[in-house]
Order: sequence, then C-alpha cells, then structure tokens
Amino acid sequence: MTETSETVRTVAILSTGDEVVQGRIVDTNAAYIADRMARLGLDVVVQFTVGDYPERLEWAWRTALERADVIISTGGLGPTADDLTNETLGRVAGVKLVLDEEQADRIRRLFQSLGRPMPDNNLRQAMLPEGAVVVPNGLGTAPGYRLSIPVGARSPVAVVLPGVPRELKPMLEESVEPWLAARLGDGRSVVSRTFQTFGMSESAVDEAVADLIDPAEGRVAFRASFPEISVRLTVIGEEGEARERLRILGDRIAERLGPAVYAEGADTKMEAVVGDLLRSRKLHLTTAESCTGGLIGSRVTDVPGSSDYYAGGVVAYSNHLKEHLLGVSKTTLAMFGAVSEETACEMASGARKAAGADIAVATTGIAGPGGGTPENPVGTVAIALASAGTNGDELVLSKMYRLWGTRDWVKILTSQVALDWVRRHVLGLDPLDSNFGRRTGRRARG
Amino acid sequence: MTETSETVRTVAILSTGDEVVQGRIVDTNAAYIADRMARLGLDVVVQFTVGDYPERLEWAWRTALERADVIISTGGLGPTADDLTNETLGRVAGVKLVLDEEQADRIRRLFQSLGRPMPDNNLRQAMLPEGAVVVPNGLGTAPGYRLSIPVGARSPVAVVLPGVPRELKPMLEESVEPWLAARLGDGRSVVSRTFQTFGMSESAVDEAVADLIDPAEGRVAFRASFPEISVRLTVIGEEGEARERLRILGDRIAERLGPAVYAEGADTKMEAVVGDLLRSRKLHLTTAESCTGGLIGSRVTDVPGSSDYYAGGVVAYSNHLKEHLLGVSKTTLAMFGAVSEETACEMASGARKAAGADIAVATTGIAGPGGGTPENPVGTVAIALASAGTNGDELVLSKMYRLWGTRDWVKILTSQVALDWVRRHVLGLDPLDSNFGRRTGRRARG
Repeated sequence: MTETSETVRTVAILSTGDEVVQGRIVDTNAAYIADRMARLGLDVVVQFTVGDYPERLEWAWRTALERADVIISTGGLGPTADDLTNETLGRVAGVKLVLDEEQADRIRRLFQSLGRPMPDNNLRQAMLPEGAVVVPNGLGTAPGYRLSIPVGARSPVAVVLPGVPRELKPMLEESVEPWLAARLGDGRSVVSRTFQTFGMSESAVDEAVADLIDPAEGRVAFRASFPEISVRLTVIGEEGEARERLRILGDRIAERLGPAVYAEGADTKMEAVVGDLLRSRKLHLTTAESCTGGLIGSRVTDVPGSSDYYAGGVVAYSNHLKEHLLGVSKTTLAMFGAVSEETACEMASGARKAAGADIAVATTGIAGPGGGTPENPVGTVAIALASAGTNGDELVLSKMYRLWGTRDWVKILTSQVALDWVRRHVLGLDPLDSNFGRRTGRRARG
Repeated sequence: MTETSETVRTVAILSTGDEVVQGRIVDTNAAYIADRMARLGLDVVVQFTVGDYPERLEWAWRTALERADVIISTGGLGPTADDLTNETLGRVAGVKLVLDEEQADRIRRLFQSLGRPMPDNNLRQAMLPEGAVVVPNGLGTAPGYRLSIPVGARSPVAVVLPGVPRELKPMLEESVEPWLAARLGDGRSVVSRTFQTFGMSESAVDEAVADLIDPAEGRVAFRASFPEISVRLTVIGEEGEARERLRILGDRIAERLGPAVYAEGADTKMEAVVGDLLRSRKLHLTTAESCTGGLIGSRVTDVPGSSDYYAGGVVAYSNHLKEHLLGVSKTTLAMFGAVSEETACEMASGARKAAGADIAVATTGIAGPGGGTPENPVGTVAIALASAGTNGDELVLSKMYRLWGTRDWVKILTSQVALDWVRRHVLGLDPLDSNFGRRTGRRARG
C-alpha cells in the first residue's frame, strides 16, 4: 500500500483510553495536537475520545476516516492487553499485523541497556498493521506509524502516536509535521512568530496589541499558559511575501509589548532565557528559597549545562536554616518576621556570600492555604536580589508582592517573578518594574 | 413532549467551540463531566469536540444521539452569532425556538442589577427549543436545559450547559446529577479502588496482577503517570455484594504488589504520603540535592503544612557548596568524585547536622545530556539517606543507580526514588530494595 500524495486540508484527532474518557486525566494531548495543526493552517474538524473497547475504537476510527484527510490518534500502544490500537487499525484497514523486526530489536536493546529483562508482552508493541510506515519514538518502547486506509475513492491517513506527552511531542514535531507540511498544497504558506510574555494579564496584552494588526493581514492569538502569556502572530500567503509581512507585523507587536516580552519562540522558558543571559555575561547565580521550597533551583537546573552559572543555594524553609546557613539575624526575624523585605534582603546577601556568586535571589512568603494573617494574607511574598555593586559593595533590591491563587500557583508565580528579576537585572532593566500587585519597593546598599 | 423515564446507562459528552477544537484552550470541562458520570456508575461511550459550524454541530449531535442515552454538551450558549447550540438542537429535534419569558426576564434583571444596558443579542439566550426543561444557571445569563429527542424507538436526552466552568459545575452537580441519579435503575453499583505504585514497570505490574482477577468479577486498568503507575480495580454489581467483592479482590492486588504500593486512592502523590508519615512519627526531614537541583524540596513543600516536618535543605550543585555548606571533604570529592556513594553519604550527614533533622536524603548524579563518562554515563545517580541510629550514632545508607531518559526524567525519577527511600525507611522497610537498575548498595555507621 502506498501513501497518499493528496493535499491534506482536514484533520481529526482521536484520543483513546479509559482513563481519558472517564475523566481520570485531562486530555492535554488533543489540545496540543490541535494547536500544532492550526499553526499549519489545517482545519481540525473533530476531536474524539473513546475508551479501550474494540467496538468503540473501531467505530471511532471508521467515523473519523469518513470526516478527515488525516486522523491523528494517541494512546493504546502500550504492552498490556487493554492497548488495542494496532489490532483495531488492522481490522479497520483490513490488513494483518506483522512483527516489525527492526522495532522489535530496538525494544529488546532498550531493555538490555537498562539491564532489565524484557517482559514478553512488550513485543506486542512491534506488531504493526501491514503497510505501516514507522514514526520513530526516540524516548519510549512504542513505535508510532502512518497507515493509508482506502475509504471509497479517498485515501485518508491514520497517524498513530503513543499517549505519553513527552514521547508524542517530538514524534509529532519532528516526523509528522514535516510530512504534513509537504502536503499543504499550492504554494500557500502559513508562517508565524510567537512571543512569550510575563508580567501583563491576558486582557492587558490583548488591549495593547488589539489595534496593531489588521485581521486581513495577520491573525493574533493569545495563549495563557500560567504563568506566561504567549502571543502568536500568524500570516498566510505566498511564502516570500508572507515572511516579509510577518517580520514587519511581528516587530510592531514586540515593540508595543516592550520588556514584558522575555523571549521569541514557542515554548521558550524563562529559566532558559535567564540561563543564556548569565552564561553570556559570565555571571554566577545562587538562590535562597523559603516559600518556593527549591522550585527556583529546580527550574534553573532543568536547563542543560546550568552548572556553568548556577552554584546551587539554600532552601531555608525554617528560621533555623535562615539563621544558620544564610546568616539572617535573629533580630531581623524577631522584628520584621520571616516574611519581610528585611529578611529577604539578608537571605539574598547571605546566599551570595556563602556561594561566592555574583547574583543571589531570595524568596520568602506565605504560599497557603494556611499561615495567612490580616496583615500578611496568603500570597504575600517578599523577593530580594543581591548583586555586586560597582565598587565591590553590594546592591540589594527588595519588594513585597501580594500574589493570588492556590499554593502551587503562588509557588510558580513567585519563582517566575524571581527569575524575571534576574533577567531584568542582567539586562539593565529595573526589576522593581514588574506589575504584580506591588506594595512597596526599596533599594539598599549593604 | 414528555421526558424519558428510561434507565440511563450511557453518556456522550460534546464540547463545542473553535477555541477548544483548535487547541487554544485545554478542555477541562469534558474531563470534569466524565469523572462525575463515572462516579455515578455511568458509562461514558464517547467525548466529541467540534467547532462552531452548523453542519459539524448537527453531525455531532446526531452521531451522539445514536450512541448514548444522555448527551451532555457544553458551550455555544453565548449571545453572539457563533453561538449555535440552540439553533442546532432545534433543527436536530425538529422543533422551533421559542422565547422563554421567565429566562428573558431573568436576563433583563441581571443586567439591571449590574446597572448596565442589555445588548439586544442577549435575548437570543432565552430562545430555547420547544419542550426544553430549564436547568437554572445561578451565575450567568445563559440558561441550560434538558431536551428529550426521539430517535427511532429511543428517547435520548440532550443536556445543554454553558461552557464557563464556574457556571456549568453547579448546574451539573445541583440539577443534572440528581435527575440522573433517579434514572440509574435497579440498584446497580459501580465501585472501585485505586493503588498507586512505584518501582515496578507497567508491564511488570500487569504481569504481577494478570492472573489474580477473573474479568467476570472485576476489571483492572493501569495508568502510567510517570514516575508512578496506578492500578484501578472496578467492580459492578448490587451495592453490598459489589463492595465486598471489591474489598477481597483489592486486598489480593495490594498483597501481590507489596511495598511497591505506596498509597491507596487516586492521585495520591508520593510527597503527600511521605509528609503524612513524617508528621505522624514526629520526624523532621532535610535534603541535600545536587542533580535534582531543588526538585525534592519543591515537591516536599508542594504539600500544605510541610513546614511541620521539613526544615529545608541545601541545593549543593557546585563542589564549593558541597564543601562549604554540607562539609563534604575535599579528599572525598577528589578520590571518589562528586557522583559517588561516598560524596552522597557525606552530603546527607552534613545536611542532617546543619538542619538538626532526624532524616536527611541526598542526591548526586549526572542528569545529562552532557557530563557523562564511560564509567558514569548520563543517568548515574547516587542516593544516600542518613538517620539517627539507636545509640545516638548515625546510620547512613547509599546506593548507585543507573537511571534513564532525558534530563527532566532523570531529575523526576531521582526525586521519586529519594522520597521512596524516606517512605521505606520510616516504615521500617529496606530502602535498598527499590529495583531501578541497582549497581551496588552499602550501609555505613558514621
């Protein structure tokens, strides 16, 4: 069976699994895939979710094949008996399952390299419908594949991917999207630029950008992916012209949003931007975390090579550790409390000294749900940044914020503000300019 | 038209809206509704998502009405031209839209109470298909409703709700669920138990449990939510009998899986289990993290009230901090290297001393992608646990692991193994029994 060379215009997305259809997990895969397809200018006509039942899966596949040129499915490729995607597609396409020796070998080698015996049922993952073209999985045992399935005069294509997000994302972006991009037809190009912003609300970003772009020239879409808001500009047209228009309109957006834009590019994280800045300026960072509990350190070290600029730091959750490892004075803690700019400043200073770093950032606050008081309700957070001044002295900035949301939100938002402080500081911008519920701001020289 | 009094067994969920089908927002409504239906013992046969197109909506409704006894839809009830649910249902049911005067009055009053003029198009929201039974919306303008729609000899019921989560949730829970609960029929109950496991692969868990449960007696489903695997047992029958069967079969699964089960209950996290154990035994924990970079601290402090048992710790990413804050000796670092059981042991000991804690857990390893060597490839991780011995001395355990995957996986897996060590230690189980690529294990008394 050969693959279609037809133009692809419509896509259906099929999520499988009892855990999804019964609502035990939220299906983020479907939204992710739909968003990627929309970026290619493709029309997502329907998303389906069905459980692990042969009849329901078969019905869903047949229905989807009627409705779209390409059907992308996730899930059902695991080694266990309730993983039914391969059998179902074999039945729907009217072909038998055959062992893909190359994939079988790869799975065997994967287990060998881990020094673990391979359970027999893992070989089921290499039993693919005849005619399947493998979509390589670099991170897991289950191979994905494409399979062309004749339906009357049409040849819609099933694209089968595993349900694990970290496996399916590179498979979609590195294998499936280039294949799709070659089938969009007639010189039409869809190009886009994405700006990552932090520090403005979604409606503030919307208002700032609203009058900039004529809808006939480009389309602006916002995506709030807490704590960031991304702004995506999409332009459709003949390739050269579209790219030029994209450049001009995109620059206009970037200028309007100013320092709230911390990166261009989809999915660029604040910690990666901060890391690049620190490395390029040969600066070293340390952290002194109370309410974030290690989250800033963990985010900083999510970036490969972060040991080049991050020494580590102290998670000073108790006052004991604030005193003993960071040198915060008993008097400060007694007079101003653990959640105060004064304590945050001493934490930052102490961490900077202990680590011999250029920059230290400190957090102390009330993440909730307990611990709030009338003066310091849940969400009250002090942030401080200590850095080397010009004459060997130290510059310390601090500010109290009143943040909002659940415990995890307060932690994430605090870590994001702290990292944004480092970014702004290194860029020579004023960290105190972030607009999250400021109460006070001060500068000190220690 | 009168409503069905038929027994309800199957449900379809229909989400509408371009923003959902194009992936600009993740559809959490569908998962929420599915979970509520599963709790009622109803079978969710399919979830659909379609955009705001008359033909697609009509197709989705007709398809859903064929497949289920009740179809719950969200979205498409707003005042603007792309809100098409009422028109679509009128067409599908073959009835005309009529103004519901009571709802029209309610909408007018809502605007009055806000002191705002009512845009004319808001009255569209009160134009409901003839025969609709209103589901009151206490928080927004759009009324919901139920509508029985004959399909051959059947009378499936459309349940129409707005897409705003804070409006739809009380409508579902306060109006729709009681209506459904009266239609479940003949004392049938669906009951389930969920076990959270760590330390066995999905296929190993599957193999361990495979022969235990006769499919006629209960259904076992696995969910791999890295780094955990959950095992859910579902039993259907008359309530008392089903509960008793669930107890017996569930205990059989728990016994077979042994200490790999760290919790019973859906979505219970390892850090919460460790927190409960530490609190109940009045033990204090500290952390000394190198390759996890603060992730263990962050996970521990994700749990509300964790300051009761967590003092904080040190993120000792650099050797400098390992020496200066944790007292790891230069000699150890030089002789054995930063990634060694010896260094991990001294990190744990040093942290325990610095924090005055009962238990310290330490991690040091190579998270990758760079930094691997032939002897210590990426994924090589040493973990150590220091605790008070019986005579005031200190017991230190350590082990080298060879983990796998990308940087974030190595970090997550290491943090999970470290937390599992604390759990096993507090429970009097042997931490060295985890089965992740063990190379060596040793015990020392310092």
